[in-house]
Amino acid sequence: MDSKLVNRLKEIVGEERVSLNETVLMNHSKDESYHEPAYPDAVIFPHTTDEVSAILAYANEHHIPVVPFGRGTSLEGHVIPYDGGICLDFNEMNKILEIRAEDLIVKVQPGVTRTQLNKELRKYGLFFSVDPGADATLGGMAATNASGTTAVKYGVMRDQVRDMEVVLADGSVIHTGTLAAKSSSGLHLNGIFVGSEGTLGCMTELTLRVYGIPEHEVAGRAVFTSTHDAVLAVTSLIQASIPIGRVELVDPDSMRQFNRHSGTAFEEMPTLFLEFHGNQAGLMQDIQFATEILNDLGCLSLEFKEDLASRNQIWEARHNLAYAYIHSAPGKKLMVTDVCVPISELAVSVDYTREMLNEMGLMGGIVGHVGDGNFHALLMIDVNNQSEVKTAKEFSDRIVRFSLSRGGTSTGEHGIGTGKRQYLVEEHGPALEVMRAIKKTLDPNNILNPNKLL
Amino acid sequence: MDSKLVNRLKEIVGEERVSLNETVLMNHSKDESYHEPAYPDAVIFPHTTDEVSAILAYANEHHIPVVPFGRGTSLEGHVIPYDGGICLDFNEMNKILEIRAEDLIVKVQPGVTRTQLNKELRKYGLFFSVDPGADATLGGMAATNASGTTAVKYGVMRDQVRDMEVVLADGSVIHTGTLAAKSSSGLHLNGIFVGSEGTLGCMTELTLRVYGIPEHEVAGRAVFTSTHDAVLAVTSLIQASIPIGRVELVDPDSMRQFNRHSGTAFEEMPTLFLEFHGNQAGLMQDIQFATEILNDLGCLSLEFKEDLASRNQIWEARHNLAYAYIHSAPGKKLMVTDVCVPISELAVSVDYTREMLNEMGLMGGIVGHVGDGNFHALLMIDVNNQSEVKTAKEFSDRIVRFSLSRGGTSTGEHGIGTGKRQYLVEEHGPALEVMRAIKKTLDPNNILNPNKLL
Repeated sequence: MDSKLVNRLKEIVGEERVSLNETVLMNHSKDESYHEPAYPDAVIFPHTTDEVSAILAYANEHHIPVVPFGRGTSLEGHVIPYDGGICLDFNEMNKILEIRAEDLIVKVQPGVTRTQLNKELRKYGLFFSVDPGADATLGGMAATNASGTTAVKYGVMRDQVRDMEVVLADGSVIHTGTLAAKSSSGLHLNGIFVGSEGTLGCMTELTLRVYGIPEHEVAGRAVFTSTHDAVLAVTSLIQASIPIGRVELVDPDSMRQFNRHSGTAFEEMPTLFLEFHGNQAGLMQDIQFATEILNDLGCLSLEFKEDLASRNQIWEARHNLAYAYIHSAPGKKLMVTDVCVPISELAVSVDYTREMLNEMGLMGGIVGHVGDGNFHALLMIDVNNQSEVKTAKEFSDRIVRFSLSRGGTSTGEHGIGTGKRQYLVEEHGPALEVMRAIKKTLDPNNILNPNKLL
Repeated sequence: MDSKLVNRLKEIVGEERVSLNETVLMNHSKDESYHEPAYPDAVIFPHTTDEVSAILAYANEHHIPVVPFGRGTSLEGHVIPYDGGICLDFNEMNKILEIRAEDLIVKVQPGVTRTQLNKELRKYGLFFSVDPGADATLGGMAATNASGTTAVKYGVMRDQVRDMEVVLADGSVIHTGTLAAKSSSGLHLNGIFVGSEGTLGCMTELTLRVYGIPEHEVAGRAVFTSTHDAVLAVTSLIQASIPIGRVELVDPDSMRQFNRHSGTAFEEMPTLFLEFHGNQAGLMQDIQFATEILNDLGCLSLEFKEDLASRNQIWEARHNLAYAYIHSAPGKKLMVTDVCVPISELAVSVDYTREMLNEMGLMGGIVGHVGDGNFHALLMIDVNNQSEVKTAKEFSDRIVRFSLSRGGTSTGEHGIGTGKRQYLVEEHGPALEVMRAIKKTLDPNNILNPNKLL
C-alpha cells in the first residue's frame, strides 16, 4: 500500500490506530497453526461500526484486501494475510453492550472473549455455552462456527447467534437476524455469515443466546477395552435420551503420554470423560441408568464425582492432554486434525487414525468430542523439518479422505481457512459453485479475506 | 402455457403425471389461508430427482414459473401460483429412504408427512420433534422453517435439517449439508435454503435429526390473574434452567370461548399449559421447583398429571382451541397472526393484541408458544365481507408493527409468503438487498415461486 492510502486510513481512525510497526505486523502474520506466516501491510484497530464501514468502503474502492483478526487462535491459517493489505484487529471493540437476562440474550462487540463474557454473566446466574478451548473472541468464534466439548448439549456457535451487525465489502451495514427467539421472515442470513471466515463481511456486533447455570453437575470417567466399545456406549447413552453435558474420548496412547508427563497411573486404555448437567435427583437417575448401559457395554471401571475439586480431578487427563504432548516435544508445533463423521462411523474412523499414526511413525494422540462424531489427532511436528511436515500433511490428508468417504466432513469445528481448501470440491460437489456465487455477489472485488475458505 | 410446452413436460414425467384437470388445478390454487386463490397452468407429480431436475431445466429455459406444493397447509399464501405456470406436487415423493437409528438421523423424500415419519420412528424408540399442528409434509415444513409447541425444547425446523438434496432453478442438483452432526466446512447452505419458501430451489431429499422418545412426560396447567404474571413465570422457569418440553399460554377470552363450545367450566383466566420431558426423578424435582416458582409468581391454581389420559385431559382446552372458534362461526375462515417478540416484550404484546381485538370489535383468541415469545391471534372472518377482511388486515398490521417496534419479527413460524411481504423493508432494512441479491444469483430468471418471500 502506498503512503497515500495509509494516510487516508489514518484520517478515518486516527493516526495512533493504524500501525506499520514491524512487531505489530509480525504479531498479525500468523495464527496458532503450522501454516506459514505472512505480513499485512498495515494493522488497524477500529473502535466503531462507522470506522469499519469507512475502512471497508475505502478498501473496496481501492481493491485492498482486508482480513479481520481476533485473538489469532485459528488453526487453519484463517487470519494470515497472504495477499497483504489491511489486518483489521477487533480487540479494541471489546465491550459487552447489553445483558438481557430475562431474554437470555447478550449483545457484545466482536472483540469480547468468551471468558470475559462468562465472568460478567456469572453475576446473573447465566453462562455462554461454547467452549473451543482457546480464549478466542466471540467474533472469531462466529467466523469459524466454533464449538468444542459442550456442543453435544448446547449446540455449536451458529446455534447461539441470534443477530449480527455486519459491515459488507462496500461498507454498508446490515443486521442478519432478530432479537426474537425464532423467525421465519426472509432468508436466514445468520446461517450464512456464521462460519464465513471473514469472507462475506466484518461483524461489528453479535447478539448471542445464553443459558442459566445448571443447578447441579456430575463428572465421570469410564474405561473400556476397545474404542469401539467406548463409542458404542456413548451412542447408547444418547439414544436413551440421557442428556449429556460433555463426553470426550481419549485413546490409550494419549493416556500413556499423560501418565508419562504427569507421573499419574491412569489406566492406559480408551477412556471416556463425561459430564452431566441438570437437577440433582434427575442426575442421580441419569447416572444410575448410564452406569447400567456403560457396564452392559463392556466398561471396565467407572467413577462419578459431584464436588468441583473432584470433578476437576476426574477430568485432569483430558484437560491437560495437549500440554502433555506439547511439553514432551520442545521446539515442535502442535498440528491438529479435525474431522467429524456420523457417529456410527466414529469407532472405525478413530481406529483408522491410530493405524495411520503408527504406520507413518508419527507421535500423536486422539481426542474426540464423541457425542458429535468429531475427533482430533494431536501431532507434534518440527515445522522446520520439511520431511516431517510433509508426512504430517499426508497423514492429515488420509484422515480427511477417510472421513469424506464415510459421509463426514473435512472440519468439524476449526474451519477451512487455507489448510482445507483442497477438499471443498470433494466435500460439496456442485454446491461449491453456489457458495462461490454468493461470495462473488457480496464481495465482487474479492477484498474480504481473499483466497480463504472458498 | 401452450400445448407444446405441456407435451414436453408429459415426455419428461409421463402423460399420467401432468394434470390439467379443473379439479386438480383448483386443489392447487390455494392454501389454508384467507388469501385469494389462483390456478396453476398445470400440476405435475414428480417421482424422482432426475424428473424434478429435467422439469426445472425446461421451465428455466422457457421462463415458466414453478411452485413446489406439499399439503397446502401454509398460512400466508406461499403455494398460490399467482403467476400461473407449473405446480410441482411432491406428494408422490413420499418415501422414508433410510433410518439411521445409531446416528439419530433419517433420510426422507419431501412428500413424507410428520405423522407418517413419527409412526415409523416409534418402532425404533425415536421421534421427530417439530409439530406445527397441521400434518404438513417435511419438505413444506423445511420450506417455511416451521416450528410449533416443541420448539422451546428441541428447536425449529432449521435446527433439525442436517442435509438436503436441492434442485436449483437451472436443474442442477446440490447437497446443502453433511451427515455429520456438525461441520465448519464452507458456507452453511442448509441455513439459507431452509425457510426460503421454494424461491431458491426444490428439495428432493431431506436428512433430519431425530430424538429418543423421552422416558417420562408430565403435563401441567397453571392459572394466573394476569398475562403479565403468567409470562413472567415462564421466563423464571426458563432462567432457572428447568427444561420445559412445551409451554403454551391461552388468554381468558379463549378459555371462555372453549367453555362455551364444550360445556366445560375451566377458569376463564390466563392459563399456562405445560409439558416436561425427562426421567421420573428429575421431573419430580423439576416440578417441585416449578411449583415454587409458579406459586411465588401469583399462580392461582396448579395441577400436574402423569398418565397419558390425564395429560390429554389437562391439555384439552389448548388442543381444541381452534375448533372452539371455528365451530362458533360457521361459514367464516380462520385468520392467524404470527409475531414473535423477545420474551421480555411478550406480556405487553399480548396485552396490546387483546386491546386491539376489543377496540376493533373482532372476535378472536390469543394463544402463545410463550417460551419462545411467539403468539397467535386467531380470528374468525367472513372472507366475502370486504369490510371484515379489511378490519382483520388492519388488525394484523397493527400487531406486526407493534412487534417490529419491540425488536420482534413479523412471523415466528408461518413465513412471509404473499401476506407479509410489505414488512420486509421495515424488518430487515438493507439486509433485504442481500437476500434479493442471493435470490437473483441463484434464480436469475425468477422462475422459482416468483413474487413470494422477497
